[in-house]
Amino acid sequence: MTRTDLNLMGQRGLAAARILATLPPERKNLALQAIAAGLRADTAAILRANAEDVDRAKANGMSPALVDRLLLTPERIEGIAAEVEHVAALPDPVGERFDCAVLPSGLRVHKRRTPLGVIGVIYESRPNVTVDVAVLCVKAGNAAILRGGSETTSSNTALGATIARAFQAYELPEAAVQVIGDPDRGLVLELLRLHDYVSMIIPRGGAGLHQFCRKHATIPVITGGLGVCHVYVDPTADLERALPVIHNAKVQRPSACNALDTVLVHRSVAGSLLPRMAQDLATAGVEIRADEAALAALGSGCPAVRPAAPDDFGQEFLALILSVRVVDSLDEAIEHITHYGTGHSDAILTTDEEAADRFVAEVDSAAVYVNASTRFTDGAQLGLGAEVAVSTQKLHARGPMALKELTTYKWVIEGDGHVRS
Amino acid sequence: MTRTDLNLMGQRGLAAARILATLPPERKNLALQAIAAGLRADTAAILRANAEDVDRAKANGMSPALVDRLLLTPERIEGIAAEVEHVAALPDPVGERFDCAVLPSGLRVHKRRTPLGVIGVIYESRPNVTVDVAVLCVKAGNAAILRGGSETTSSNTALGATIARAFQAYELPEAAVQVIGDPDRGLVLELLRLHDYVSMIIPRGGAGLHQFCRKHATIPVITGGLGVCHVYVDPTADLERALPVIHNAKVQRPSACNALDTVLVHRSVAGSLLPRMAQDLATAGVEIRADEAALAALGSGCPAVRPAAPDDFGQEFLALILSVRVVDSLDEAIEHITHYGTGHSDAILTTDEEAADRFVAEVDSAAVYVNASTRFTDGAQLGLGAEVAVSTQKLHARGPMALKELTTYKWVIEGDGHVRS
Repeated sequence: MTRTDLNLMGQRGLAAARILATLPPERKNLALQAIAAGLRADTAAILRANAEDVDRAKANGMSPALVDRLLLTPERIEGIAAEVEHVAALPDPVGERFDCAVLPSGLRVHKRRTPLGVIGVIYESRPNVTVDVAVLCVKAGNAAILRGGSETTSSNTALGATIARAFQAYELPEAAVQVIGDPDRGLVLELLRLHDYVSMIIPRGGAGLHQFCRKHATIPVITGGLGVCHVYVDPTADLERALPVIHNAKVQRPSACNALDTVLVHRSVAGSLLPRMAQDLATAGVEIRADEAALAALGSGCPAVRPAAPDDFGQEFLALILSVRVVDSLDEAIEHITHYGTGHSDAILTTDEEAADRFVAEVDSAAVYVNASTRFTDGAQLGLGAEVAVSTQKLHARGPMALKELTTYKWVIEGDGHVRS
Repeated sequence: MTRTDLNLMGQRGLAAARILATLPPERKNLALQAIAAGLRADTAAILRANAEDVDRAKANGMSPALVDRLLLTPERIEGIAAEVEHVAALPDPVGERFDCAVLPSGLRVHKRRTPLGVIGVIYESRPNVTVDVAVLCVKAGNAAILRGGSETTSSNTALGATIARAFQAYELPEAAVQVIGDPDRGLVLELLRLHDYVSMIIPRGGAGLHQFCRKHATIPVITGGLGVCHVYVDPTADLERALPVIHNAKVQRPSACNALDTVLVHRSVAGSLLPRMAQDLATAGVEIRADEAALAALGSGCPAVRPAAPDDFGQEFLALILSVRVVDSLDEAIEHITHYGTGHSDAILTTDEEAADRFVAEVDSAAVYVNASTRFTDGAQLGLGAEVAVSTQKLHARGPMALKELTTYKWVIEGDGHVRS
């Protein structure tokens, strides 16, 4: 595949997006349901293609954890199909009218929600992303150009074929979803510069991928991917409730970006909280890295505790590791989060309304929690019905993004021959 | 000024933004009112500084039109001061709560509007932008780093000093508004890469500046600056109303980005519209560049008409020039706009509701008009109370941008010890 081919992909994507933009919701939904049916019907072929990727990955010495990320099973394919049906059933965001007004001039004005156009998605090893993202883009009236990891080329090509057949059956444009099958990494760079055709780039992967996209793109990029998440335990916290929240935030899925990395605890409750917390987390295999004051509060009897190194703060562990620091005030906790956080998800555990208000106002993160686990930063959990990405940048959308965040708006202005004076 | 200095500016801006973010509206408004008072009190000094810029520009052979853009007068300074007072009186966008919900889990969720942080603004010769933009940024709780044109360095430094004194009087952080006074153009490049501190870049200027910013920035850029605007006259248009709209869109301020560039007229009304339109526009000194069919409809008696060259379509004239093309259908008009437009402002003149609906749905521009002049694409005209830029990109904000568009939001999630299952 060459630069010219990619340019052509952009042109075809834009032409497809123009058609998708005005399709009635039913047509899009029928096509989505056909994708779900196609995934079930094509399961054997998809699994065969996936087996090629898995075999290649194993031959290349990929770790079992990473191999598991790219592995598809009949159950996983059924899960993907069910998610497609779920998205089909969500309300269509396109065409919504808002900010309606009649201006003093008599002009009638409203904003109307419209698709973005062509969305480029660059992602890593999970092949389910191919379907999840394609379906969300098309539901919101957009065309998608998908660039998966080179380690899942066969799976993504098979999934792309299933999607294409569904579109053909319901006469959606073939180029509504295009998969870049060529593993050449130079194509990612070209995709990032396709601003004549592509409106938005969504990277789905680690911090390195996001930085690469931000550095090289001439198209707006939704940055995220890095979550150093904090829980601050305030002097008034209800410790019976604090322990399960900390446990959940750290343990329920440590590889997620909204998983807890650091507990900040007020000195006045360090002695009562930390030994119990350490015991509780030890049962889940969590290693604690504690600052000096926390070590003192923990005492010598706690299992799996060691002194924190400086870089244990501000680190996204993605593993059963937790750093712990004792602070002397809410100010110190907020200052720590401002300095070490990544603006993803941070929580306060407190019964003091004033402390909660200050924490919420002053912690500048996409999701700020009071008395709840940071693990809720997720489109489905927060009521969006789905999720295409979690943004930690501030433009366009912040936090979980789903259908509405895959749209823009136009101003519609109606007059009776109005002129500006 | 060095790269290190600019980095320091970013750091200081971010620290100032953190303070501004939680200031009560009254404090910000008092400081803004003090800027207005300061502009009036400092008029003589500002005019002296401006005279330096004007003298230098004249010595460098700058055209009178461009010199006029950078010229300040007592009346213009009073106009800037009045606009500052107007912005101070607008509602404060920060802290607004929206999308409030209680989720099935019992979690209480809302979004809360917050400032963006530090905004970088890169602009050209008009020194009023220094004040307009500074005031809008600070009203929305943001710090600003301003880089004006090298030809207005003295004026901008004087205006920056007036702003700084007002902030000092009301104890706003000094770095809330920082002016890059050094004319070194390399600093623009550095500013575009200050993503550790700056959340958004707003270029205010021509298409070249916008392209430069998009190409080099690692920070989200609000792109705009280029408006190739169309009016389509449909067979059912009320010609008595069409003529004043076309006149206004072309003539009222031809140097604006929302001024009309091309009239597309349906063949069935070309004969009745075009000769009258040409007569009318000739009185205002407009030159018409007509395609073959339009030339035929215009006849030989029309003044200031010449055949259109191919590049007269898709061109932003910024002058009293209008290209005219005859089309055979609404589809052809939409296709022309899709091909030649820049997604800024496009209008249909019609009494056919169905044609209006299709035009509004299918023309993918920031502002789509029915029976009104394209000149209304402006924050003040469309009810925003002010304007910081007009965006023709699709992310974050599209069309006129004012205070709300200078904010982001955070998710606030409140529970009672909620954990994810």
